[in-house]
Amino acid sequence: MHETPRADRTPPGFVGGTLDRVDHVRTNPALLAEAFADSSARRLVLDGLDPVEADGHLLLEPINRQALLADHVLLGVDPEQRPIFVRLAGDLGGNLGPTPRSRGIAGLIPAEEVALYGTARSLVHWHARHRFCAVCGAATQPVKAGWSRRCDACAAEHFPRTDPVVIMLAQHHGRVLLGRQHGWPQGRYSALAGFVEPGETIEEAVARETFEEAGVRVRAVRYVMSQPWPFPSSLMIACLAEAEDDALRLDPTEIEAAFWCDADGVRAALAGDPDAPFLAPPPMAVAWHLLDHWLGEVVTADASA
Amino acid sequence: MHETPRADRTPPGFVGGTLDRVDHVRTNPALLAEAFADSSARRLVLDGLDPVEADGHLLLEPINRQALLADHVLLGVDPEQRPIFVRLAGDLGGNLGPTPRSRGIAGLIPAEEVALYGTARSLVHWHARHRFCAVCGAATQPVKAGWSRRCDACAAEHFPRTDPVVIMLAQHHGRVLLGRQHGWPQGRYSALAGFVEPGETIEEAVARETFEEAGVRVRAVRYVMSQPWPFPSSLMIACLAEAEDDALRLDPTEIEAAFWCDADGVRAALAGDPDAPFLAPPPMAVAWHLLDHWLGEVVTADASA
Repeated sequence: MHETPRADRTPPGFVGGTLDRVDHVRTNPALLAEAFADSSARRLVLDGLDPVEADGHLLLEPINRQALLADHVLLGVDPEQRPIFVRLAGDLGGNLGPTPRSRGIAGLIPAEEVALYGTARSLVHWHARHRFCAVCGAATQPVKAGWSRRCDACAAEHFPRTDPVVIMLAQHHGRVLLGRQHGWPQGRYSALAGFVEPGETIEEAVARETFEEAGVRVRAVRYVMSQPWPFPSSLMIACLAEAEDDALRLDPTEIEAAFWCDADGVRAALAGDPDAPFLAPPPMAVAWHLLDHWLGEVVTADASA
Repeated sequence: MHETPRADRTPPGFVGGTLDRVDHVRTNPALLAEAFADSSARRLVLDGLDPVEADGHLLLEPINRQALLADHVLLGVDPEQRPIFVRLAGDLGGNLGPTPRSRGIAGLIPAEEVALYGTARSLVHWHARHRFCAVCGAATQPVKAGWSRRCDACAAEHFPRTDPVVIMLAQHHGRVLLGRQHGWPQGRYSALAGFVEPGETIEEAVARETFEEAGVRVRAVRYVMSQPWPFPSSLMIACLAEAEDDALRLDPTEIEAAFWCDADGVRAALAGDPDAPFLAPPPMAVAWHLLDHWLGEVVTADASA
């Protein structure tokens, strides 16, 4: 039996932001200045790219009078009508990847604050890594409340990147294909994944990546859900697909090992059973929810069979 | 009645590429050199960013001995096992947007060649607009068969962009919301659309954009299909959603006009009826297929009612 009703589950991490992004304010200098000067305005405190938690919430601080609007991104207006900003980072140094603190924040604060942190992290990272114009090499400046950068030398405008990534479970006769990458925690397996490339659909990317990584041909790709993933700025697009057969031919540069897991094994792994055939990804990852969704479909199919 | 069975429809433009992208060759210098030297290898001819058509096909030419591998992108291997390359452009000048020739190619050549052109256009455009390192401003060089650029000064690696865009029909009591942007052909209306931003899901982006552009709140967003759109490099993610009510409040900077259209009106527009209430987007656009999909759902619902 699949025990917890799926609607009761919390969403994957970084999903469910409650800020109004007030797009019209970004391009209106008067409204933007007003928001920045608002005594209720708050600045999200980051430590480099890491979140700072206090009493079960993200740390927000008042914005002092000396602060420069040009150094800030307007993230939006929160449900209490407070404009929420984040300050652009100076030099972030070399460590721009996920840390235990950034990965662990989902368990410490409400879901909507995890989403706020994710948005802020992606934008601060993007600005730090896009100080120069890719067209001409000149320095660029943030504009539009930090939602774009402009090159004064060649007039090019640059927008934050969001990289679509497909993450998928191929299924075959009641089992799903799980793989592990080099360097993952011992026993961890998850859905396969890869970046969508220019010139392909989501469905084509799922088929290409599954074949490249595991040698498995799939058809009938179905979209399940999506998740923003701020390391640094991906859009995870979770799908199911039907495998044509279960023979594996792994790409050893991408995948260290892979296997087909049945519903009992997936159920045990999601429940955290130490005897499960693999260590599941954490619930903040969309892969956990994709596995859970698949399990729900299998149970429904069994019940109607 | 909805007359043409939907499975018989050709896909949207740029969908359905048949090249094997041979990811493993990109990072293997020996295999890559072999592919480039292969007497069957062909180079896709572009005129700036425009396609060149000859006898109902894209023009492909042999690669001469003087050509430099470093100036080329390996697009993949075609079903006849020919490696297909495209040459990176020198200065493309100012006109980097879609042209009548690039938009019109879908009617002149097979669908898989339209997809090949789309991939090539996105990559050639990306290289032309990313000659410099966004991190440090130094010049970058193409690596990995043109699927990445590397900065020798700071060692940053840059990958081609693919920008996810949501395009959606909000439906309300048997009608869908259509809008027109400034400068579109007279009478043209289509689905609303906008870029997915960092920190949001596909579903959240659909809700935000529909509210920003038209003042309409939606729920129950459903993914329908996707399409690569090479102007310059978007991933169009087509969705349906349920509108909470039909009152409109347009953002005049984004939308010139909008209205709710019923199934008869959509059917007439897709059929090209001159008396239709709007001029439909062309069948190469995913919006045409989204409207067609919606019509199919409405007919199915009517038939089962």
